[in-house]
Amino acid sequence: MKIAITAVMISVLGSSATGQTTQGSAKTKKIVTANDVIDQIKAHVGVPWQEPTVDTFKAGDPQSPVKGIAVTMMTTLDVLKRAAANGQNLVITHEPTFFDHLDNPKQLPQGEDDAVLKQKREFVAEHHLVIWRFHDYWHRRNPDGIEEGNVHALGWEKYQDPANQYMFTIPETTVAKLAEESRVKLHAAVPRIAGDREMKITRVAFSPGSAGFHRETGALEMPDVQVLIAGETHEWETVEYVTDAHTEGRAKALILLGHIASEQAGMEECARWLRTFITSVPIEFVPTADMWAAPLSSDEKR
Amino acid sequence: MKIAITAVMISVLGSSATGQTTQGSAKTKKIVTANDVIDQIKAHVGVPWQEPTVDTFKAGDPQSPVKGIAVTMMTTLDVLKRAAANGQNLVITHEPTFFDHLDNPKQLPQGEDDAVLKQKREFVAEHHLVIWRFHDYWHRRNPDGIEEGNVHALGWEKYQDPANQYMFTIPETTVAKLAEESRVKLHAAVPRIAGDREMKITRVAFSPGSAGFHRETGALEMPDVQVLIAGETHEWETVEYVTDAHTEGRAKALILLGHIASEQAGMEECARWLRTFITSVPIEFVPTADMWAAPLSSDEKR
Repeated sequence: MKIAITAVMISVLGSSATGQTTQGSAKTKKIVTANDVIDQIKAHVGVPWQEPTVDTFKAGDPQSPVKGIAVTMMTTLDVLKRAAANGQNLVITHEPTFFDHLDNPKQLPQGEDDAVLKQKREFVAEHHLVIWRFHDYWHRRNPDGIEEGNVHALGWEKYQDPANQYMFTIPETTVAKLAEESRVKLHAAVPRIAGDREMKITRVAFSPGSAGFHRETGALEMPDVQVLIAGETHEWETVEYVTDAHTEGRAKALILLGHIASEQAGMEECARWLRTFITSVPIEFVPTADMWAAPLSSDEKR
Repeated sequence: MKIAITAVMISVLGSSATGQTTQGSAKTKKIVTANDVIDQIKAHVGVPWQEPTVDTFKAGDPQSPVKGIAVTMMTTLDVLKRAAANGQNLVITHEPTFFDHLDNPKQLPQGEDDAVLKQKREFVAEHHLVIWRFHDYWHRRNPDGIEEGNVHALGWEKYQDPANQYMFTIPETTVAKLAEESRVKLHAAVPRIAGDREMKITRVAFSPGSAGFHRETGALEMPDVQVLIAGETHEWETVEYVTDAHTEGRAKALILLGHIASEQAGMEECARWLRTFITSVPIEFVPTADMWAAPLSSDEKR
């Protein structure tokens, strides 16, 4: 039942955000090809690179000369179109391009003949795009680059635990107000709340993406954690668990922001980070549109 | 990446809802124990019972005399409390009780010492509840009992394909209006839409629960299907797929109702079905509260 696309983060239960990033002796080098960019990322991320990882090229020729770099949360076709229109031929994405954690959409009944997949692959080929995924090692970096971006976007640096970057003590608020703050600052189209939305809280765990039942309940098992913010999770696992905790009278609630909203700021952070050591090609953050339209309201006129 | 808790349904691509349910020679018998009830279900469901299946006892003594039967979508503690208060000691649930598809919450960091789990198990034991799951075979029945309940709640019998119970041709409407109709009739707290909410549609596939990428894209690959209604699904799979299909100019959209709202009516149907052959003990449908509170609105005063 473990979710394959987990945010590969340092354990919520006892991670440290205090270590210094080891940048080794890597120096800013002239960037020529996509491979050069990735080599620079590997040299600067501060964590030894090991296989297997999903952080690999997904499309295009790694030897292509790079004209511009687009950094994004999820390479939807909409993102690829905007990158191509901007002249960015290297796209660095946190999430899959081809609807599968390994970018191998073998579960599609029509396989490579699937019309949606085919048209997306054709667009990539016609525009000579090179796509590389930056998921595992952007999380494994210290601090986790995704969480760093979330903290920056929320303005929560002063509330963050020195010993655990995923834990926060914030000024007293309610679950609903916290969801609203997250909605606005992280651009979540449809946040959802399980538990008591009027509960007063100060202690928050933020687990970006889809970290799975083990990590999510690991945070909720901590006696002081009152609310967990996450991206998406299975209703028959973490959501039932937090709902039961609430019924048992425990001070526990869950806010799901949606996968994109819960990690997008972390890729904006990634673009900023890349600019610190790649200066010879333009780098732009291309936001992925939240795939959920505005929430329905029964008062809405249609 | 396959989701374990799939709605084990006859393939969306070519199922038949026209076959007659084979009830064999089972006759209404005096019900004494929980085991007797389950034996009657197996005799009436019309599909040969085979292992492995998740349709097993999850708690309590199958030899317990049954005073009353509660039928529910998901055995949250809230549901169990209402069943116990009503004097119903056999609870038949579609979804897990212990936060795991196999009701073995081994992913909990604290395992059986987890306080939430422990208190739930204690409640079950103290009230001598017997819990049995009815998932695989309620879907495998012909017609799929979950889908039958959804069709009943929506009033869509006249729109249903004779050759495929998951497919519907409805009077022209928009994606947003369809989502609103589903929200009201199926009691979905927070439906979400991917794709163009103003798109006009007539052709709908309804895949209850969490059937996974393969089945969901199998429906979306059908040229005439314009909108897929489902419970929950991964954003990096089906949601990215439908978003790209929309960007490619295809008439495809997705409505996610939430897992409970997408299957709850199917367990109300189950209670009605049980009453046709179990008459010696009272049977009640105990609705599971949708775990998502009302959607947030930026206009809302707090």
